[in-house]
Amino acid sequence: MTAPLEFWFEFGSTYSHVGAFRIEAECRAAGVPLVWRPFLLGPIFTAQQGIKDSPFNVNPVRGRYMWRDVERLCAKHGVPWRRPTVFPRNSVLASRVACAGEGAPWLGDFIRGVFRANFAEDRDISDPSMLAKLLKGFGVDPEPVLAQAVTVENKARLRANTEQAEALGIFGAPNCVIQGELFFGQDRITDAIAWALAAPLA
Amino acid sequence: MTAPLEFWFEFGSTYSHVGAFRIEAECRAAGVPLVWRPFLLGPIFTAQQGIKDSPFNVNPVRGRYMWRDVERLCAKHGVPWRRPTVFPRNSVLASRVACAGEGAPWLGDFIRGVFRANFAEDRDISDPSMLAKLLKGFGVDPEPVLAQAVTVENKARLRANTEQAEALGIFGAPNCVIQGELFFGQDRITDAIAWALAAPLA
Repeated sequence: MTAPLEFWFEFGSTYSHVGAFRIEAECRAAGVPLVWRPFLLGPIFTAQQGIKDSPFNVNPVRGRYMWRDVERLCAKHGVPWRRPTVFPRNSVLASRVACAGEGAPWLGDFIRGVFRANFAEDRDISDPSMLAKLLKGFGVDPEPVLAQAVTVENKARLRANTEQAEALGIFGAPNCVIQGELFFGQDRITDAIAWALAAPLA
Repeated sequence: MTAPLEFWFEFGSTYSHVGAFRIEAECRAAGVPLVWRPFLLGPIFTAQQGIKDSPFNVNPVRGRYMWRDVERLCAKHGVPWRRPTVFPRNSVLASRVACAGEGAPWLGDFIRGVFRANFAEDRDISDPSMLAKLLKGFGVDPEPVLAQAVTVENKARLRANTEQAEALGIFGAPNCVIQGELFFGQDRITDAIAWALAAPLA
């Protein structure tokens, strides 16, 4: 047993898509326990940069590169990919479902399913019926899960995740965090896993 | 012989420091010819983002992470590192010298020497006497090189590099470019070398 690796992701983020498809297999291969941590980037971008859109839309030169880079990365890592017609998509409901599913055996499949819907199937991840279908596909009864997702307690959980992300010094997505040590970007997954393997258990 | 890899860098950039210490050895090991391409990020940041400072200073949360990340990367890749007291430093003269030294046998050593001065020895890389000393250390007579660096023709060369960087879709540093294909960040050096090895020669 090593220190756990927290994977902090945002369903609207292209690089989170790449990371989400890599992280479970790479953690398992290394024997590092994985904790999924959904959060919202929107409030962080607004607080830190005063913007109400993705930085990739705000700076179109950076945006143009990002689309090409993600396409190459998906080809390299065997991650499904088709550029969506809407970017970024509203990720609030999907993130609430991921919070509600903490520790559930279907959580990893659900997370990858939402990313696949957004970034390979060009579907609206804020649509409850789409999310319900996804859950049904894993043999999960969607009604109670979607009902739990929008409870006051669960909404507060997502807000708390986003506040904790800010407190950790997060400014983008995805991130790996090991005992407070922050690694930004799917580029740093290998370094983060090495850090977890070297970290002394508390 | 494979397609050449152009390494587009800025002497004031911390991630260019990491990349500059990696790129020559990694290209040589792969048999990929390397072309050093100095340019200035300042005009690009101003044109694209309307800022007159490093984005890492403009967004201090991102800046705080960058300093930690670069420290870790330098330890990982065996790159000399000490956080400078001034950031970013004025890189115009050093970049002009690098333009003047195009194809010279001392160019790689000079480039790493300037990065080392800035990011490991906390020295002022805009000081002509510092640059002269550096050149002398490689057995190069500094007077004619520094004189050539500030000629109208050579100043225009650096401006042309910066304009070409913009035309390539560059928005940060460092970058690897192979036949117009852009790879941003020292994180992408391995991918860029693989791209060069796979690229058909024109």
